Amino acid sequence: MTAANRFPGKLNLRTGKVDMSHGSGGRASAQLIEQLFVKHLDNPLLAQGNDGTVFPSPGEQLVMSTDSHVISPLFFPGGNIGSLAVHGTVNDLAMSGARPLYLSAGFILEEGFPLADLNTIVASMAQAATAAGVQIITGDTKVVEKGKGDGVFINTAGVGVVDSRRQISGERAQAGDVVIVSGSMGDHGVAIMSSRENLEFETTIESDSAALNGLIADMLATEADIHCLRDPTRGGLATTLNELAQQSGVGIKLKEQAIPIKPAVHAACELLGLDPLYVANEGKLICICPAKQAQQLLAVMRQHPLGSDAAIIGEVIEDPHHFVQMETAFGGNRIVDWLAGEQLPRIC
Amino acid sequence: MTAANRFPGKLNLRTGKVDMSHGSGGRASAQLIEQLFVKHLDNPLLAQGNDGTVFPSPGEQLVMSTDSHVISPLFFPGGNIGSLAVHGTVNDLAMSGARPLYLSAGFILEEGFPLADLNTIVASMAQAATAAGVQIITGDTKVVEKGKGDGVFINTAGVGVVDSRRQISGERAQAGDVVIVSGSMGDHGVAIMSSRENLEFETTIESDSAALNGLIADMLATEADIHCLRDPTRGGLATTLNELAQQSGVGIKLKEQAIPIKPAVHAACELLGLDPLYVANEGKLICICPAKQAQQLLAVMRQHPLGSDAAIIGEVIEDPHHFVQMETAFGGNRIVDWLAGEQLPRIC
Repeated sequence: MTAANRFPGKLNLRTGKVDMSHGSGGRASAQLIEQLFVKHLDNPLLAQGNDGTVFPSPGEQLVMSTDSHVISPLFFPGGNIGSLAVHGTVNDLAMSGARPLYLSAGFILEEGFPLADLNTIVASMAQAATAAGVQIITGDTKVVEKGKGDGVFINTAGVGVVDSRRQISGERAQAGDVVIVSGSMGDHGVAIMSSRENLEFETTIESDSAALNGLIADMLATEADIHCLRDPTRGGLATTLNELAQQSGVGIKLKEQAIPIKPAVHAACELLGLDPLYVANEGKLICICPAKQAQQLLAVMRQHPLGSDAAIIGEVIEDPHHFVQMETAFGGNRIVDWLAGEQLPRIC
Repeated sequence: MTAANRFPGKLNLRTGKVDMSHGSGGRASAQLIEQLFVKHLDNPLLAQGNDGTVFPSPGEQLVMSTDSHVISPLFFPGGNIGSLAVHGTVNDLAMSGARPLYLSAGFILEEGFPLADLNTIVASMAQAATAAGVQIITGDTKVVEKGKGDGVFINTAGVGVVDSRRQISGERAQAGDVVIVSGSMGDHGVAIMSSRENLEFETTIESDSAALNGLIADMLATEADIHCLRDPTRGGLATTLNELAQQSGVGIKLKEQAIPIKPAVHAACELLGLDPLYVANEGKLICICPAKQAQQLLAVMRQHPLGSDAAIIGEVIEDPHHFVQMETAFGGNRIVDWLAGEQLPRIC
């Protein structure tokens, strides 16, 4: 008996919808797994078909991370929840200096969600995983009644391997270090917000959603002593720098004019009443390193397509208050505080 | 500056509610993490405080698994979504013969969810993790608007280590093997359903939700050649045995009278119109092993509190159709098919 005649019904990927039986663990669940998930994600590890997937340990020191994705809308300029769910966890792993290798994927589907959209989302996950050099090796699907979810939520967890001599951590920033960003700030959040509000600008603002492990591999290859790497997602550059300042017990001084922000993102932020420093990014990183190695790192980053606009935006200073402050374009000075309250919900 | 005066507001764990700012990545998110999640889950690995958590590889061969939990109601006799989320992934890992070690936890909270309930749930997770000997080493929290979720969904993913000489897999059942279950079938699903329908029975039926890694460790210590281990969760015993028969290319023959089912569960199933063979379990396992090692394994299982009602319920036979069939209490024979459609939604 083959899989084909074991589940004689074919999923209708054009007009079909998710129903409660797809989460039952029975025949309909198996059909959804075989005809949609496995179709896109197939690899020898996933094909083990057990509740847990066995794989050889990739090294002596490993990294694990997880991220749930609840973005609204599910499809946006520059990506969708599927590609975002892969990039999110790949990046969280890479920020430890790890090589991301294996992902799990957990789907929470709302009854009535179009199978055609799910098919597109899973195809994007597969594509993003291949591009990032990771494999989705285990998964889970649940279905909730209509009105108890929001289309689809995706959790990804991941495992990577890191050279045990590396010590990249949020607590390693020290006075005299410089702060580098890999490119323009705010693109992802503004793309989502524009798409949510149906705003049309002269040029479409695309999310920067991307896997940063390739860029980081190039940076690690320089043998520079990178102290911190972190991706400024929810809460944006401002909140992430405050986290790092707090964790390392230092202050950070930024130069407003040095922070790369696209004119279209600036304009959209003014219209939407947002501060681009607090807007989420999904394909950018912050790197903190000794000043004397900054130029070398910057040159390497600019060689990579995801780092072509990399810039030094500030320096780490001693500050018992652990403030992030910024020299404004007009020569003034202001405190750049943590995000308080919410600026943009459901952004990732 | 200490954490205490960095976030001067204290979470109100008596009457407070989740609001959108708890998912923003800013100050309120940090407050929720420090005052609720870290309070219960604290351990040296989680305390690294980076996006990914670094840990030494526990061995040469690893196992990864994931499970999202969307159970309704969130609290039920014998547990809640927090303990269940730990048991679910611990068990999925253990079914490969692995020693579960590290979990990630991803929360999707609905705006307005009581912080007191979240506090209880996270405390249960911490307790379940400690009891099972695993650590929650990384996490993520998202918040969705009221009406876009259902209180709380929890994804856990996990990593364990498995002896590379072990080959426990759903494809290893072979004719002549016997089928053992570790205890009574249907307790979890009936507990959830009774609680959902507000049914009162003479004795409260409790979920069997439990971590099975301790029982499995005792079984592995016998050095018996265990071919398959699987926990009969969604879809129950019937569906799980069909999966195993399919994966191994064999048939399975059960004896109805040998299958342990509590009288109260039987009675509740009759009332609810359910077949206990299709009802979910969350603290039971199916073991398939060579007949000559079954008695030894059974004796060891019965020594463990979670295996005291273990029983041999059938045998593996040759069958080109890969059917699961059952000799009924009256001496008849029936096919025990895959679950078709849905019997019990939102059960785990």
